[in-house]
Amino acid sequence: HIRSSGWIISPMDSRYRCWEFYMVLLVAYSAWVYPFEVAFLNSSPKRNLCIADNIVDLFFAVDIVLTFFVAYIDERTQLLVREPKQIAVRYLSTWFLMDVASTIPFDAIGYLITGTSTLNITCNLLGLLRFWRLRRVKHLFTRLEKDIRYSYFWIRCFRLLSVTLFLVHCAGCSYYLIADRYPHQGKTWTDAIPNFTETSLSIRYIAAIYWSITTMTTVGYGDLHASNTIEMVFITVYMLFNLGLTAYLIGNMTNLVVEGTRRTMEFRNSIEAASNFVNRNRLPPRLKDQILAYMCLRFKAESLNQQHLIDQLPKSIYKSICQHLFLPSVEKVYLFKGVSREILLLLVSKMKAEYIPPREDVIMQNEAPDDVYIIVSGEVEIIDSEMERESVLGTLRCGDIFGEVGALCCRPQSYTFQTKSLSQLLRLKTSFLIETMQIKQQDNATMLKNFLQHH
Amino acid sequence: HIRSSGWIISPMDSRYRCWEFYMVLLVAYSAWVYPFEVAFLNSSPKRNLCIADNIVDLFFAVDIVLTFFVAYIDERTQLLVREPKQIAVRYLSTWFLMDVASTIPFDAIGYLITGTSTLNITCNLLGLLRFWRLRRVKHLFTRLEKDIRYSYFWIRCFRLLSVTLFLVHCAGCSYYLIADRYPHQGKTWTDAIPNFTETSLSIRYIAAIYWSITTMTTVGYGDLHASNTIEMVFITVYMLFNLGLTAYLIGNMTNLVVEGTRRTMEFRNSIEAASNFVNRNRLPPRLKDQILAYMCLRFKAESLNQQHLIDQLPKSIYKSICQHLFLPSVEKVYLFKGVSREILLLLVSKMKAEYIPPREDVIMQNEAPDDVYIIVSGEVEIIDSEMERESVLGTLRCGDIFGEVGALCCRPQSYTFQTKSLSQLLRLKTSFLIETMQIKQQDNATMLKNFLQHH
Amino acid sequence: HIRSSGWIISPMDSRYRCWEFYMVLLVAYSAWVYPFEVAFLNSSPKRNLCIADNIVDLFFAVDIVLTFFVAYIDERTQLLVREPKQIAVRYLSTWFLMDVASTIPFDAIGYLITGTSTLNITCNLLGLLRFWRLRRVKHLFTRLEKDIRYSYFWIRCFRLLSVTLFLVHCAGCSYYLIADRYPHQGKTWTDAIPNFTETSLSIRYIAAIYWSITTMTTVGYGDLHASNTIEMVFITVYMLFNLGLTAYLIGNMTNLVVEGTRRTMEFRNSIEAASNFVNRNRLPPRLKDQILAYMCLRFKAESLNQQHLIDQLPKSIYKSICQHLFLPSVEKVYLFKGVSREILLLLVSKMKAEYIPPREDVIMQNEAPDDVYIIVSGEVEIIDSEMERESVLGTLRCGDIFGEVGALCCRPQSYTFQTKSLSQLLRLKTSFLIETMQIKQQDNATMLKNFLQHH
Amino acid sequence: HIRSSGWIISPMDSRYRCWEFYMVLLVAYSAWVYPFEVAFLNSSPKRNLCIADNIVDLFFAVDIVLTFFVAYIDERTQLLVREPKQIAVRYLSTWFLMDVASTIPFDAIGYLITGTSTLNITCNLLGLLRFWRLRRVKHLFTRLEKDIRYSYFWIRCFRLLSVTLFLVHCAGCSYYLIADRYPHQGKTWTDAIPNFTETSLSIRYIAAIYWSITTMTTVGYGDLHASNTIEMVFITVYMLFNLGLTAYLIGNMTNLVVEGTRRTMEFRNSIEAASNFVNRNRLPPRLKDQILAYMCLRFKAESLNQQHLIDQLPKSIYKSICQHLFLPSVEKVYLFKGVSREILLLLVSKMKAEYIPPREDVIMQNEAPDDVYIIVSGEVEIIDSEMERESVLGTLRCGDIFGEVGALCCRPQSYTFQTKSLSQLLRLKTSFLIETMQIKQQDNATMLKNFLQHH
Repeated sequence: HIRSSGWIISPMDSRYRCWEFYMVLLVAYSAWVYPFEVAFLNSSPKRNLCIADNIVDLFFAVDIVLTFFVAYIDERTQLLVREPKQIAVRYLSTWFLMDVASTIPFDAIGYLITGTSTLNITCNLLGLLRFWRLRRVKHLFTRLEKDIRYSYFWIRCFRLLSVTLFLVHCAGCSYYLIADRYPHQGKTWTDAIPNFTETSLSIRYIAAIYWSITTMTTVGYGDLHASNTIEMVFITVYMLFNLGLTAYLIGNMTNLVVEGTRRTMEFRNSIEAASNFVNRNRLPPRLKDQILAYMCLRFKAESLNQQHLIDQLPKSIYKSICQHLFLPSVEKVYLFKGVSREILLLLVSKMKAEYIPPREDVIMQNEAPDDVYIIVSGEVEIIDSEMERESVLGTLRCGDIFGEVGALCCRPQSYTFQTKSLSQLLRLKTSFLIETMQIKQQDNATMLKNFLQHH
Repeated sequence: HIRSSGWIISPMDSRYRCWEFYMVLLVAYSAWVYPFEVAFLNSSPKRNLCIADNIVDLFFAVDIVLTFFVAYIDERTQLLVREPKQIAVRYLSTWFLMDVASTIPFDAIGYLITGTSTLNITCNLLGLLRFWRLRRVKHLFTRLEKDIRYSYFWIRCFRLLSVTLFLVHCAGCSYYLIADRYPHQGKTWTDAIPNFTETSLSIRYIAAIYWSITTMTTVGYGDLHASNTIEMVFITVYMLFNLGLTAYLIGNMTNLVVEGTRRTMEFRNSIEAASNFVNRNRLPPRLKDQILAYMCLRFKAESLNQQHLIDQLPKSIYKSICQHLFLPSVEKVYLFKGVSREILLLLVSKMKAEYIPPREDVIMQNEAPDDVYIIVSGEVEIIDSEMERESVLGTLRCGDIFGEVGALCCRPQSYTFQTKSLSQLLRLKTSFLIETMQIKQQDNATMLKNFLQHH
Repeated sequence: HIRSSGWIISPMDSRYRCWEFYMVLLVAYSAWVYPFEVAFLNSSPKRNLCIADNIVDLFFAVDIVLTFFVAYIDERTQLLVREPKQIAVRYLSTWFLMDVASTIPFDAIGYLITGTSTLNITCNLLGLLRFWRLRRVKHLFTRLEKDIRYSYFWIRCFRLLSVTLFLVHCAGCSYYLIADRYPHQGKTWTDAIPNFTETSLSIRYIAAIYWSITTMTTVGYGDLHASNTIEMVFITVYMLFNLGLTAYLIGNMTNLVVEGTRRTMEFRNSIEAASNFVNRNRLPPRLKDQILAYMCLRFKAESLNQQHLIDQLPKSIYKSICQHLFLPSVEKVYLFKGVSREILLLLVSKMKAEYIPPREDVIMQNEAPDDVYIIVSGEVEIIDSEMERESVLGTLRCGDIFGEVGALCCRPQSYTFQTKSLSQLLRLKTSFLIETMQIKQQDNATMLKNFLQHH
Repeated sequence: HIRSSGWIISPMDSRYRCWEFYMVLLVAYSAWVYPFEVAFLNSSPKRNLCIADNIVDLFFAVDIVLTFFVAYIDERTQLLVREPKQIAVRYLSTWFLMDVASTIPFDAIGYLITGTSTLNITCNLLGLLRFWRLRRVKHLFTRLEKDIRYSYFWIRCFRLLSVTLFLVHCAGCSYYLIADRYPHQGKTWTDAIPNFTETSLSIRYIAAIYWSITTMTTVGYGDLHASNTIEMVFITVYMLFNLGLTAYLIGNMTNLVVEGTRRTMEFRNSIEAASNFVNRNRLPPRLKDQILAYMCLRFKAESLNQQHLIDQLPKSIYKSICQHLFLPSVEKVYLFKGVSREILLLLVSKMKAEYIPPREDVIMQNEAPDDVYIIVSGEVEIIDSEMERESVLGTLRCGDIFGEVGALCCRPQSYTFQTKSLSQLLRLKTSFLIETMQIKQQDNATMLKNFLQHH
């Protein structure tokens, strides 16, 4: 459902995605330029900027028309709706009016009617409708945050930075506007800078932004402060707003930091718990090393998280994964040669993958035969530890099975099996193996024959 | 228990709720006006405000009387107590005294006794008892926060904003009061503004608020700073208080941000875990798409959260829900035609609803018959995939059952069943189906007859 | 182990607790007074304060001696050690030296040696050892935080406030000290206040504290700022320190806010989940009311948290609780009259308590007899709902059992049982009841006889 | 794999670790000195510093060569790669170029080419490449954070402090540089301090750092503020950056505080839940004490966390731990004398360790024999509580078993068993004991013989 068909464009179409991104750039441009124009260029509007603004408005008009041809995903059914009528009804009943209102070039109309290029207060207020377009920027960020190709941390930081910069810009322009329009000259914040009105545009803009950010960050040097009541009111509102914004920024950063350090915290906590446990119980050094190695491995290889993920999936996907991951290894095992695929699938779906660190006992001599293991990777040594003397009898590799002698003969394990290197093993409960063997008589016979031939 | 009866009013009565809301507005008014009156209007009290204050006090007196007729919910038993005597005892032993004390018009009494309309210090301090009424505002916010019709984020923001504004107002009025009452003229913070005492009321109020919020937000321009020791002490206390308030604001915002981004975080984490898992195990693209589609679906359709919710409910409600949701679908199934309602209810209570994304294998050919599925919505294709060649044999729709052939004949599934679109399926363990069939001989026969007729 | 015996005092003895609290007050006094003395009274030390200081030191000396007679709890074994020798060894090897060093009255010794009452720099530095005593304050707060009789929120706030105030005090005194000792008069921060050196002690102290808190809270008016390099260095260090402290305050407040709103959040989330679930599945209003009532009840009555708590306890305590809570209700049930206590205890240990909101079906007609219920409180109606017509057959009260007819006769439930008011029920699995009855032949007979007599 | 062999050095070799730490110190030195040199010593470079810089660069050159001989751990396989070719390929394809670029002494080369020791702008910019080395500091901190030998809190605080100080230093130097290079004398921030350019180096440096930290911490006294447009732009950028940094600091601190108070919170919550539960159900004081004692014990002895940890370990390690911890106690038990090791291992692997507080009933008289207990430490009293009169019959100690009479004779427990002091018990389900006994006929006979001999 990603391709577009007929006149209807899919919202997932890459060309439409490009268009959307381009529109967001235009939104950013117009949201940036508008306060600047009103505050700094009102007395002497620039011809070039006017033309640019109207071209931008034209693009937005095209986008409004385009929206009638873009399919949408229904919230309830999660299906793509391509019916032109439904699309039109949905758009007309939701954002259409606001989109149109924010696209009408009120200043151009004002110029045609009044004949003067100086914007009056009505036009300025109507121009605020353009901020409605910022909704698109929000949508873009929300989508990017859910896209795992990008880092959540940086997308979120960039989003917060954009919001902060935009507000600093708006506040700076407004503060300048208030001083510029103040009737009694000589009692505004601009008096703190000598010859302010004669200086160049960039110097005036930078001073306004400097004040704005000094206040926003609560540094408040005090070199540029309110000089009359209107400015006091404006600053009061701005500071109250900043209080919320600063708290929001800190809240977001805290959230990101907590998320970012979570894994390290968990790692430390589990290692510390293991270390405390070992010390409290005075376990021998060999067991201690095994436990700590396992805990470290767990965080590096993330094998257990894997199990957690698999548990979340529905049974059908789970079976496919088991089949894909374990069947090749299981088919190599001598015991299952010639066994029907049905039985193999059944066995595979009950196996658990485990990563075992090096030099660890998987099966201990004289232990009851609870489990059977199949080696997927790594090496396992067979050790005979009769009478305190350990002798290595052999090494098992990928595709070998062990523990099956005890399981099929119902007697305690005759040898210790110890990993030589980091190994991935499939564990299968003995009871389930026996049960499964008894399902199909023919396969049972095959397996027993395999077993007897091998030993 | 929402309706009022006799003389006793239910606290859930909508008219009483309106009255309560109206009282909160009056509280807000009186808490706002009182510091303003004391600080700015003390030397020249306004006649209108005096009258308004006394009318407000009258309403509070009415409310005290009314409280004797409002039932309450007992904390222990969670039952509504309507007994007038119990209501009176409870009110008299708790808030009655404070309510009365905060309603007595001390300034009016003071005027009657002293004959001057200027408030003295005793009256001012007694007037602080009015802040006792703010308890009502707190109760309203606490109730609104628990009401899921309103957004927690905005209620909480509004609550914090109200607290902040109220404190800014109080601090501004106090700061002005200190300067106004300072014995030695010409050494207060007001000296920084020329001709301060002659300016209009609004300009003086705005200046005080401007100072208050500049200090609260820690901007601290320094244009209005302490000029004498009393002001220093006041500012010290105010700043110490603000330190706590700012930390509280940030703490709340962090809490809201964490809560607000929790779902996005969870979504990203699970998608990333799935993506890592797929890459680490080099799963084929088809399985990868299935897994990612399922993880996305899980967050959109929230079917699993649904299961989590159902698990929390007591068994009796759980059975009713199952009956309501699944019985209509189950009754349509050919296998259960003519089966007694008792057996159907038993079957239904053991079914699990699952949402399966499109193009996913629900049952694989030659698989052991563990589960039987009933289609609630969506479509499922029957696929015969013998010898690497897949051929679609048919499509199942709402009310169809599949997997029952294997289950009832105790042999591996003969076909693969794959979803065609997003489907909701009911899963029933084969073992449980067999068990349930054997409970009632008659229903067992009906089902077997249905099965044989159908095939 | 709370009483003291012989010469050894128990640390849990209430008199020792009082002494400890009194010592903390002395610590607070000496930590407060010391910086003040050094900074403000150095040139003209007060006789009274000197005497007070030495009395305080005397108390600390007494405490050092006392510590040799106070038992302690061993970290490993969690047992109280009363052996004088062990106590002495432990104290001498840990804090003894520091305690003695912080108690020696260096200034008195200095006075005896030099003959002047003005403290020199060595004495001042040695006096800093007194801050070692603050360890006691920390211990007190740590213990109070773990004491559930006090609110964690307020204890924590008070702790943070104490730390903040103490640091503000120390910084203020240090800042004054730097200006006071600065060799070149006329270039310190005190120049900003006219005639600073001639003003009274309190005004100078307030100014220093005013500066200290203005800087700490980052308001930074700038009316009192650094005027020479030494002050700049001091302020740099102080601000860096404040950055950490402010972050720590905010972190703590966030933690408290999160903890404080956790329950409301959980409540909202579960209610919202339930509401969404109901709307998505279009459940009938009656079921919707039941589900929402149950979710609300769950948070008010906390019955489920109760189950969670019980699960954490060891089996032996769990059995005692069940016996205490449920046995009286179970003994009242007609079915268990004359049954041996052993069997009753066994039954009771397997029962689960459930709170059911009013008007909810506990057992539905024709349902399989899975569970048997005993009423602990509330009322349950027996309803016969044959042919769409519901007729109430009777009402069951505390001590009644229901569902046992179906359970013992192995047939579907003949009536619907619905709660009339909020009820607490004990649920017992039918299978377990049957199993338990078969343990003792005699009790089985008694129960069957009871059952037959009753019906 | 910690030892180095041949020419290849292991990254875990302690000598290499020392070298790495020494390199980090050099990095810190060069990152600190470079901005200082550029800003303050540009006009009069110091001969000594130049030589020191070149020696430092020499060390980094040596380190680049060394890196070709250091083995590395492969991310995928978690194995150590010692192959020189692989090491070289990996290094050349990753950081080699940047390392070389950051080591070339551009200023020395510039001196050789131009013949003047004054750095020009190109050299300054190329010098910024040295900040690339800070990567090493980050790696060191990341490794220390994962090392449980050091406190996470202090490592993290030290890391944040380092970052903050470094940025303050850089900003201070840059701010001075801007003023120093500003063409029109008399319009920079340095004008606020009289005779700034003539003062000593340290005074100028301290003033710059004072401004830097005043702005960073948002105190903003305003005594040193921007005086021209370039400074305004610089401050704007610096403040925006600080906003992020401050939020990051607070976020980190919040994270640490939450982590630090987690255990106390959990403790309070569980004690409060237990206390509420006891009060709501009006349990007798003896049960209340038992419950609260158990909850306290749980947090002190952490026995339950131990169980949680054991559950995470793979089965093979789990069995080793059980064997190590419990086998010595089990072998002492009279019942298991002469029983084969195989059966003992099986029994041990199913035992659960429990800490029971003093004076608590482990088994109650007439209770069904569900569990058998073995004492590991502590004492247990046998109590006969017939007819409301309790008489102590004896005391059991380490290595004793109780509850086995009921278990083997299949009759209710004849006595109550109560702990006398804090005891660690092994719990074994009766059913599992019976099952295990029946595995081997010979051991069954031995156990029964032991049992009969003992009674």
